[in-house]
Amino acid sequence: MAALRRSVVLRRRPAAEPDPSDFEIIEDDIPTPGPGEVVTRAIFLSIDPYQRGRLWDRKSYAAPVQVGEVMTGETIGEVVASADPAFKAGDIASGARGWQTHTVTPASLLVKHERGAAPLGAYLGVLGMPGTTAYSGMKDIGQVKAGETVVISAASGAVGSVAGQLAKRAGARVIGIAGGPDKCLWVQEELGFDACLDHRSADLPGQLADACPNGIDVYFENVGGAVQDAVFPLMNPFGRIIMCGMVAQYNDPTPPPGPNLGSVVGKRLRIEGLIVTDKPERAAEWRALAEPWVKDGSLKYRETVIDGLDNAAEAFCLLLQGGNFGKMLVRIGADPA
Amino acid sequence: MAALRRSVVLRRRPAAEPDPSDFEIIEDDIPTPGPGEVVTRAIFLSIDPYQRGRLWDRKSYAAPVQVGEVMTGETIGEVVASADPAFKAGDIASGARGWQTHTVTPASLLVKHERGAAPLGAYLGVLGMPGTTAYSGMKDIGQVKAGETVVISAASGAVGSVAGQLAKRAGARVIGIAGGPDKCLWVQEELGFDACLDHRSADLPGQLADACPNGIDVYFENVGGAVQDAVFPLMNPFGRIIMCGMVAQYNDPTPPPGPNLGSVVGKRLRIEGLIVTDKPERAAEWRALAEPWVKDGSLKYRETVIDGLDNAAEAFCLLLQGGNFGKMLVRIGADPA
Repeated sequence: MAALRRSVVLRRRPAAEPDPSDFEIIEDDIPTPGPGEVVTRAIFLSIDPYQRGRLWDRKSYAAPVQVGEVMTGETIGEVVASADPAFKAGDIASGARGWQTHTVTPASLLVKHERGAAPLGAYLGVLGMPGTTAYSGMKDIGQVKAGETVVISAASGAVGSVAGQLAKRAGARVIGIAGGPDKCLWVQEELGFDACLDHRSADLPGQLADACPNGIDVYFENVGGAVQDAVFPLMNPFGRIIMCGMVAQYNDPTPPPGPNLGSVVGKRLRIEGLIVTDKPERAAEWRALAEPWVKDGSLKYRETVIDGLDNAAEAFCLLLQGGNFGKMLVRIGADPA
Repeated sequence: MAALRRSVVLRRRPAAEPDPSDFEIIEDDIPTPGPGEVVTRAIFLSIDPYQRGRLWDRKSYAAPVQVGEVMTGETIGEVVASADPAFKAGDIASGARGWQTHTVTPASLLVKHERGAAPLGAYLGVLGMPGTTAYSGMKDIGQVKAGETVVISAASGAVGSVAGQLAKRAGARVIGIAGGPDKCLWVQEELGFDACLDHRSADLPGQLADACPNGIDVYFENVGGAVQDAVFPLMNPFGRIIMCGMVAQYNDPTPPPGPNLGSVVGKRLRIEGLIVTDKPERAAEWRALAEPWVKDGSLKYRETVIDGLDNAAEAFCLLLQGGNFGKMLVRIGADPA
């Protein structure tokens, strides 16, 4: 009996907060690569907030996932069949997309990784898309200078944790905002932020003002909502806001109003949106820069690993509730290493 | 009997919409210049929306005018006494600040103008601060490319009229928004914008969407409020919003919420504040560029001139209600030319 491929498809569009029942698993044959294509067997699947955006049936920077289609998400895994000279069976590669056990991908979209250079999950997190996002946001928009005050929301997350560590390396005072005392403790003690505030605490605006006596020069925005409201009035002249995400409202079909923009004029704020794939060269730059930091342990990260493709939808719902701690991964298959 | 200097001082801070009675005229002696100083006799006074900001007792990019102090505003006039070798009596100079007949100013802050090169009022408008603002906004933030769609609010105003003409010169499709049919007609027929919409019309969002079938690439923001609300959803990916002013709310002690910023991420919008004095080199650049265009008539502008320092406060209140048509000037003294 030949093995089958298993895939998670969208069963219906969630109207607000998604539920695992909005997804279902289908089976079909493991595909065969056409010329220039490669089939990989997934070991880890990356679960990311942007994936919620693909479930709305509206125009955005990427096409929505249609009902009945396989959910999108990056995987890292092992090449099982290749019709391209650049890859052979047994290679480790990231770049295949889909919540599924096996994926056929043009070889040009895959990146080969040396076995043992870093834990495989790292290529989906600290060394992958989220890490690159933090790097690009800081390099292309934030441009942090020593002595500046930087605030990072979702500070324990895959993006925020890297963004804050980069700001520390740049010599900034870095204040994280995260959900709950465990995450705040880790951000402060392990990542070395100067402070980390709990966004669930009653007086976030007051606490943030106390933690930023010289105002805020750079804000790395991952959440929106009440955190954004607290940050905005504290922004300094010539402040930069890296608009990376607003996960607090991703389940909201009618997002609330935002901050009055009058202060943007007088303060000469720069508010700029970031989609990491716009500067594809950043991915390799970041890997080259950060791999040694991961090896020597100076760039810290944390993962929440959920086992099994059957639990991918649950992992996704959990992520949107802030139930992850660090990078959210689903382990789909065995790591042969 | 020696002539006296007359000055408009702030009598009380307006709580919302200012009234001429918030100001009063005081008299004192015409000053004598100290070393390196120059005394000018004002011919025209510039009335600008930013002056409303100086009446709030709050921290901003410039210190507020205190009760009892002379109101701030740029003038152009004739040198009547100079203790600096760079200026002599009879010279025409701009840069002196104050709603008053005579002002003492460090010579380094004054700019001398050749008599007859352009009408004097132009140095406070199309060739002065407002024109430079439009130029800097387009050069430093807007970076309009041929074929893009550009929307200009307060399109018949001193800044908007120049910004739109610059966008036309760059090969863009330019849509103005102005208050009332006369201004809209002038913007379209005289300034050559592709269209101009009346912000007072019932369905501005619908009209704007119709006028911008390819979306909006650059928005030059001068007003805020309902116009901003109409523009925001139409912004294209990689759009730029030049945050120059939000005059619609300048009298509002508690400005309303703004647009939800979620779309800034996916569209990679860049929203950036502009204060023209941050790049002082732009002023001379712009004068050199635009003086020939004013001379040959290809850069068009319009002025509302109110006669007499006694009417300066009324001119200011009128401006904040949109009662000006083009650059608002107060004629304070005779032009000797």
